[in-house]
Amino acid sequence: MLVVLDLIGVAVFAASGALAAVHARLDVFGVIVLAAVTALGGGVVRDVLIGVTPPSTLRQWPYLLVPAVVALLVFRWHPAVARLRRGVQLLDALGLALFATTGTVAALGTGAPAVTAALVGVITGVGGGMLRDVLLNEVPTVLRREIYALAAAGGAAVVVAGHRLGLPSGPVTLAAAALVATVRVLALWRHWNAPVAGHL
Amino acid sequence: MLVVLDLIGVAVFAASGALAAVHARLDVFGVIVLAAVTALGGGVVRDVLIGVTPPSTLRQWPYLLVPAVVALLVFRWHPAVARLRRGVQLLDALGLALFATTGTVAALGTGAPAVTAALVGVITGVGGGMLRDVLLNEVPTVLRREIYALAAAGGAAVVVAGHRLGLPSGPVTLAAAALVATVRVLALWRHWNAPVAGHL
Amino acid sequence: MLVVLDLIGVAVFAASGALAAVHARLDVFGVIVLAAVTALGGGVVRDVLIGVTPPSTLRQWPYLLVPAVVALLVFRWHPAVARLRRGVQLLDALGLALFATTGTVAALGTGAPAVTAALVGVITGVGGGMLRDVLLNEVPTVLRREIYALAAAGGAAVVVAGHRLGLPSGPVTLAAAALVATVRVLALWRHWNAPVAGHL
Repeated sequence: MLVVLDLIGVAVFAASGALAAVHARLDVFGVIVLAAVTALGGGVVRDVLIGVTPPSTLRQWPYLLVPAVVALLVFRWHPAVARLRRGVQLLDALGLALFATTGTVAALGTGAPAVTAALVGVITGVGGGMLRDVLLNEVPTVLRREIYALAAAGGAAVVVAGHRLGLPSGPVTLAAAALVATVRVLALWRHWNAPVAGHL
Repeated sequence: MLVVLDLIGVAVFAASGALAAVHARLDVFGVIVLAAVTALGGGVVRDVLIGVTPPSTLRQWPYLLVPAVVALLVFRWHPAVARLRRGVQLLDALGLALFATTGTVAALGTGAPAVTAALVGVITGVGGGMLRDVLLNEVPTVLRREIYALAAAGGAAVVVAGHRLGLPSGPVTLAAAALVATVRVLALWRHWNAPVAGHL
Repeated sequence: MLVVLDLIGVAVFAASGALAAVHARLDVFGVIVLAAVTALGGGVVRDVLIGVTPPSTLRQWPYLLVPAVVALLVFRWHPAVARLRRGVQLLDALGLALFATTGTVAALGTGAPAVTAALVGVITGVGGGMLRDVLLNEVPTVLRREIYALAAAGGAAVVVAGHRLGLPSGPVTLAAAALVATVRVLALWRHWNAPVAGHL
């Protein structure tokens, strides 16, 4: 269950990384590398933080195959991918939702305290996208988009609360992921803007 | 003692990150995230390098509360913060001094050899600021400012020497931090410039 | 044997980092720091991924002395270094070859499965150069150069295959490194270009 959600997150983040790489005019190998970094970066950082070495995402074939296949599909049919309205942002919202919640579950599974697990979840969610943006020389989305990190933190908090209350992990994780994705999509759709400091 | 110095370092680095984020026109959530990354980044990297997982800074409430509160204060009253002459650089010098020395002490505490402890201390000192600058798409201060890494290395060397001689940790750490901050402030005040390669 | 190859890799990556820093007009301390980050970054990331803490490259004097000495030599005689035709790219190719193969050997030595070892080797090979380029605000070479990561992956695969077949580690590592360097140099010399996505 956790693995399936995690692999869907890998696939959507790989697509977001590959599309960004295509738009930055990278060649096919650069597209594959950036897709892999975006898709696996958050999970690798998560495992390093909770002491799982070598990181679990580097030990299983599907985690390596999925980003490569997705990158090649996007490379070939990127106009179709990009035409989907707000395609990149929607994929990014879904990846954020899945990684932030499954990352929190993974950290709780190692016996980490609640606040640590929530933070590790947020870092798992935003880590891949931050690496993608830094490598393409852009100020990361997480610093610019409205309530991006806040949405991830909300989902992580729901997972931690469910764990405390002894609720079943699967449905709680799905509900938390749906919350994160909904908040992000609403923020995109309604153009929710957070305040910027005045008097500069 | 170590925790108090560490929290002061967290607060000043958070202020330096928040001020840089305000000047980069990030919204309030981006300011909080950048303050937290700047303040906690060096300590997280330190703990990952010495094998403390999950990192201790992600396990304690004060380390999370301080950057958030500092970020909100800077967001609200940033003109006052920025008017303090050379405010950012002074905060940065103080944070560098505290993190480089407490990072060395923490590494020595895990039984690391002297040269490793000093290096881990330097990385702890410059890590948060490097992350701040990379995320804002700037060449990091540590690569551009005169004797920035050298000042941190000097402080780390003093801590290691005091440890070898069996001197009490607290006063030695304070003296080493004062040395780092003094060197940095003198370099800023007297415009000490290191040579640049010629004949290009 | 492994240590000697590793130190040669450290020296050539330090030279590539120092030359890039000189061309970016950093001062002498910035040149040393960037040389050290480029030379040691891949190995530190490798050790963090396979759970060797503190990283072995931070525990031995030669690993710290070599980048500092190389940086000072490049700082003083950089016109001679740069006049060597395609100097930076050749050094980079050699460093990639040595780090990708010795990184794979080191990961196999900790009992990591074959696919993990190969990936850790690739990350060791490209890690230092990625950090160098990110710190200088450039899109990393690994994303832009033809078959850069592919060459590293080929070398890592040869090391893993040799390990599976029980062949002696030393000659296999040298042969794999020669393969990586040859592929990179051929790609540079013949201007091999990978396709870029069309229809933008």
